Amino acid sequence: MKTNLRKITKKGKCLLLAYDQGLEHGPDDFNDKNVNPNYIIEIAKKGKYTGLIFQKGIAEKYHQEIKKSKIPLIIKLNGKTNLVKGEPISRQLCTVKEAIKLNAKAVGYTIYLGSQYESIMMQEFTKIEQEAHKKNIPVILWAYPRGRDIKTKSKKELLAYSARIGLELGADLIKIQYGGNIKDLKWAVKNAGKVKIAIAGGTKKNEKKFLTQIKEIMNAGCIGLAIGRNIWQSKNPLEITTKIKKVIWK
Amino acid sequence: MKTNLRKITKKGKCLLLAYDQGLEHGPDDFNDKNVNPNYIIEIAKKGKYTGLIFQKGIAEKYHQEIKKSKIPLIIKLNGKTNLVKGEPISRQLCTVKEAIKLNAKAVGYTIYLGSQYESIMMQEFTKIEQEAHKKNIPVILWAYPRGRDIKTKSKKELLAYSARIGLELGADLIKIQYGGNIKDLKWAVKNAGKVKIAIAGGTKKNEKKFLTQIKEIMNAGCIGLAIGRNIWQSKNPLEITTKIKKVIWK
Amino acid sequence: MKTNLRKITKKGKCLLLAYDQGLEHGPDDFNDKNVNPNYIIEIAKKGKYTGLIFQKGIAEKYHQEIKKSKIPLIIKLNGKTNLVKGEPISRQLCTVKEAIKLNAKAVGYTIYLGSQYESIMMQEFTKIEQEAHKKNIPVILWAYPRGRDIKTKSKKELLAYSARIGLELGADLIKIQYGGNIKDLKWAVKNAGKVKIAIAGGTKKNEKKFLTQIKEIMNAGCIGLAIGRNIWQSKNPLEITTKIKKVIWK
Amino acid sequence: MKTNLRKITKKGKCLLLAYDQGLEHGPDDFNDKNVNPNYIIEIAKKGKYTGLIFQKGIAEKYHQEIKKSKIPLIIKLNGKTNLVKGEPISRQLCTVKEAIKLNAKAVGYTIYLGSQYESIMMQEFTKIEQEAHKKNIPVILWAYPRGRDIKTKSKKELLAYSARIGLELGADLIKIQYGGNIKDLKWAVKNAGKVKIAIAGGTKKNEKKFLTQIKEIMNAGCIGLAIGRNIWQSKNPLEITTKIKKVIWK
Amino acid sequence: MKTNLRKITKKGKCLLLAYDQGLEHGPDDFNDKNVNPNYIIEIAKKGKYTGLIFQKGIAEKYHQEIKKSKIPLIIKLNGKTNLVKGEPISRQLCTVKEAIKLNAKAVGYTIYLGSQYESIMMQEFTKIEQEAHKKNIPVILWAYPRGRDIKTKSKKELLAYSARIGLELGADLIKIQYGGNIKDLKWAVKNAGKVKIAIAGGTKKNEKKFLTQIKEIMNAGCIGLAIGRNIWQSKNPLEITTKIKKVIWK
Repeated sequence: MKTNLRKITKKGKCLLLAYDQGLEHGPDDFNDKNVNPNYIIEIAKKGKYTGLIFQKGIAEKYHQEIKKSKIPLIIKLNGKTNLVKGEPISRQLCTVKEAIKLNAKAVGYTIYLGSQYESIMMQEFTKIEQEAHKKNIPVILWAYPRGRDIKTKSKKELLAYSARIGLELGADLIKIQYGGNIKDLKWAVKNAGKVKIAIAGGTKKNEKKFLTQIKEIMNAGCIGLAIGRNIWQSKNPLEITTKIKKVIWK
Repeated sequence: MKTNLRKITKKGKCLLLAYDQGLEHGPDDFNDKNVNPNYIIEIAKKGKYTGLIFQKGIAEKYHQEIKKSKIPLIIKLNGKTNLVKGEPISRQLCTVKEAIKLNAKAVGYTIYLGSQYESIMMQEFTKIEQEAHKKNIPVILWAYPRGRDIKTKSKKELLAYSARIGLELGADLIKIQYGGNIKDLKWAVKNAGKVKIAIAGGTKKNEKKFLTQIKEIMNAGCIGLAIGRNIWQSKNPLEITTKIKKVIWK
Repeated sequence: MKTNLRKITKKGKCLLLAYDQGLEHGPDDFNDKNVNPNYIIEIAKKGKYTGLIFQKGIAEKYHQEIKKSKIPLIIKLNGKTNLVKGEPISRQLCTVKEAIKLNAKAVGYTIYLGSQYESIMMQEFTKIEQEAHKKNIPVILWAYPRGRDIKTKSKKELLAYSARIGLELGADLIKIQYGGNIKDLKWAVKNAGKVKIAIAGGTKKNEKKFLTQIKEIMNAGCIGLAIGRNIWQSKNPLEITTKIKKVIWK
Repeated sequence: MKTNLRKITKKGKCLLLAYDQGLEHGPDDFNDKNVNPNYIIEIAKKGKYTGLIFQKGIAEKYHQEIKKSKIPLIIKLNGKTNLVKGEPISRQLCTVKEAIKLNAKAVGYTIYLGSQYESIMMQEFTKIEQEAHKKNIPVILWAYPRGRDIKTKSKKELLAYSARIGLELGADLIKIQYGGNIKDLKWAVKNAGKVKIAIAGGTKKNEKKFLTQIKEIMNAGCIGLAIGRNIWQSKNPLEITTKIKKVIWK
Repeated sequence: MKTNLRKITKKGKCLLLAYDQGLEHGPDDFNDKNVNPNYIIEIAKKGKYTGLIFQKGIAEKYHQEIKKSKIPLIIKLNGKTNLVKGEPISRQLCTVKEAIKLNAKAVGYTIYLGSQYESIMMQEFTKIEQEAHKKNIPVILWAYPRGRDIKTKSKKELLAYSARIGLELGADLIKIQYGGNIKDLKWAVKNAGKVKIAIAGGTKKNEKKFLTQIKEIMNAGCIGLAIGRNIWQSKNPLEITTKIKKVIWK
């Protein structure tokens, strides 16, 4: 049951290019360039990302291009549209076996903690882990608090809870959303114990502010970022990539 | 995991004759002639359609006639009546194995994106894909936005989202409903990436308008149509077929 | 995937004795005589019915008597009580394998089209078909529209829809309820295509009216009846049976 | 598919000691003596009951004592607490395989007919039957009408319906609750056909009245009782047992 | 089907260190020290606890440290966050097979009796038991009454019911929450029959009061405690441990 992150990290740090927004948010995130997976693969390749995150459909249809890029593939195993309101449920859409066949070096799964369907996602996630760990494939948990019941908790508690769930359930890397409070993030990192944390990039931000935030993230003990829109919505994806990498691998 | 559409296309284009309306809409779509599957098989044969879409029941009972027609069979794997109101759910009614035994060259499945049951259909669809792709059978996604929650989205977004889901989830051909705005359709085609798009015919239309629309569809980059009522509700199904084919294979 | 009705028909026509009312309606349908399955088996035997419909419990406990009668056994695979109100759901209670072991020559299953649970029953039905057809056992569909959502449809549409579903889903015989309009029934028969239709007897009726109705049913192209209360609630079950048979095999 | 009740009857009659109340009703049924399963096993042994009904937990932990008593063990396969209000659902908690390993001579299962969850319990029950009958283990159905929808039915109808369900679904013995009307009970017995009926003891009753009732029960054609509180809540369990046995085996 | 508690008890008594609060309650229970699983493992080791309770994630990531400590590992197989309101449901997150691979000497599972989802948890629990008992692994039941429907029952009844469920369902050790009434607890112990009871520590308490309570617990016939916050939130975990052990093994 040992797994490691070596294949999707460099010197223990990571910069992952996320591109599952086409399913999660819909085409409104895209423009004429970045709507094309090949554009993303090019950025990952030239920017030497330590991993590239796709749903299984893109992984299948752009198999050759991904292979050529030599960027390690991470397949997101569940997903949903943003069309359905109410308590979120995101179910498994790709098996570990399929992911391995597509040459994935890691797999990802989102749990919406606090959702009425939390228990279904937790159970599905832990089954995936069991299979992935047998094959020595690391499992990345997207840990996002959601749903009508989470309002009574503070941001600090929710951030730390998200991280902690990754440790308790057996994830190998936890992806959480950073709210901007470094003390809260340090507490979250502590809660994850031996499990590493990467921060989600979120919506596109002012570059300077964003770079400052990344410094905080690294100072807090995270190992890097899983980032999408801030890169491929940028006019100069490689320029901003270079800047980010300097902060991460300073 | 490679599949191709060669068996249901000609020179990369397709004209599929759809006849799953008996289940989806009920007999109100039919008259004394077109209620008979043999009438449809005859049209497909004489009109040299590149594929013929049936539910498994018709595929079983008219197996000999379909075989004789030499038109490639496409089996629709899920379905529902239009009697049930509320959030739509359409479950698998035929396995990939059964479809292959019935000599199907491709299979189809509807996902109602935006429905409260979206996650169940997405999961079932991706399991079908896994099996079909192993057997080298292409999977066609009927991607239709439905349900109470989709009202806040624009038509453009919904069209592009439908197409994108086909790419993200791993379909080989995506069937969407064209609303008449060519810019929106071009955007949807881009969102599908390497995955091809065919347009649903919908309710019967004025012939001239319909042919103009098909031109737009082809100009937008779609590879053809999956069409039913506009053909078999027509007084001259073969005449309109000939006209449509000229537009598609011009 | 070929199945035929030869074992439960005579010269292509059928007269099936239905006795699943004990589960579906409860004992209020019964009197001191017809409460006893042996009374029913005797009627079937003396009346030379082409089939006898039981739930698995009666098929098991009266196995010897059924065998001795030589009347082909049809096992109803799902069922429910009439105690539960709201949207109807009727689940599988007997497998195809058990039915074959009990010497069944055909199996039956009810789909309540229009019910909120329609998709669950459709899926279960098509799985049963897959297994039954492998063993060359014909599948009879009880196609009954039910539920709060069917009120907007006309009787004609519902009757034809019921028949059509049998064809679309792959049944070998469809049992529907005749409302009394012969034109509607002819339209339903057309919608069933190659699949045969038998009419449910329903509640006990005036004999003369009933026989007239059966003439209409046969004229409309149905192959016979699946009848219960009109026989075993009758004072002279064999007399009425003889009269019915004259109409069917005239 | 033959099973028989020989192992839990004597001369075709039965007196079963029921002790699943700890799960179904909670400890309020108990006192310092009868809270102890060994006290119950002693009563069964000295009273020479024809069967002893436990949940799997007690069957496991008191395995030696049960074995030594030589009283045939009946394991109740499903159960629920009385803490949950609303429509009752009782799911399988022990497999037939486990029951056989624990040396059970019969198994039991409750269906709450009329409950919104009726179809789930019916399906689970019939699956259990399939397995039990393969191993020649008789299945006892606890048939209890429950839920908000049963109020429109008369007591007579509900009693007969409960019995009938046992026959229709394939039970080998049916346990129902007797309301005190002998005519109703006779009608229920008729509805069960070849399947035998045992009456549930219910809450503790006046001894004289109770013995009169048992006479009625036997006269109505039942084969005996499955009884708990009237025995082990009694000051003289063996005295009352002797009296009951005289009525049953008179 | 024999299992025993020898591996997690000493002279028939137990003191288990519980640390599943990170999942069940979230990080608000933690401080900078006890947020670290290694701190907990150290306490267990130095305090010579008879068992250490973790979720599978911590068991995996701190496998070496746990092994070195030689404290028997108990893996909690289900869990949930406290973010979701309404009727509680806690699903299986780790299999018995995984637990054994991680060197667990016992497994635990929570049933929220009285919850609308009670039947789902009871069924899952009994399946786990079946597998665990085959491998001779004892199963600990966390039996906690919860949900809107339990309010009508007295504390005494709920405590005894919790204990009884453990016996009825086949647990090997039952963990319940002690309310402070020794008579109620004695009654609960009686209801558990041959099955042993350990008391949950609950929120942090005044030391003197707590030690008095433990005396009561032991006098009532319990075999020990499963305790977390009262230890690892204490300034002197080993000091309080020593005091508790004196009471348990006096």
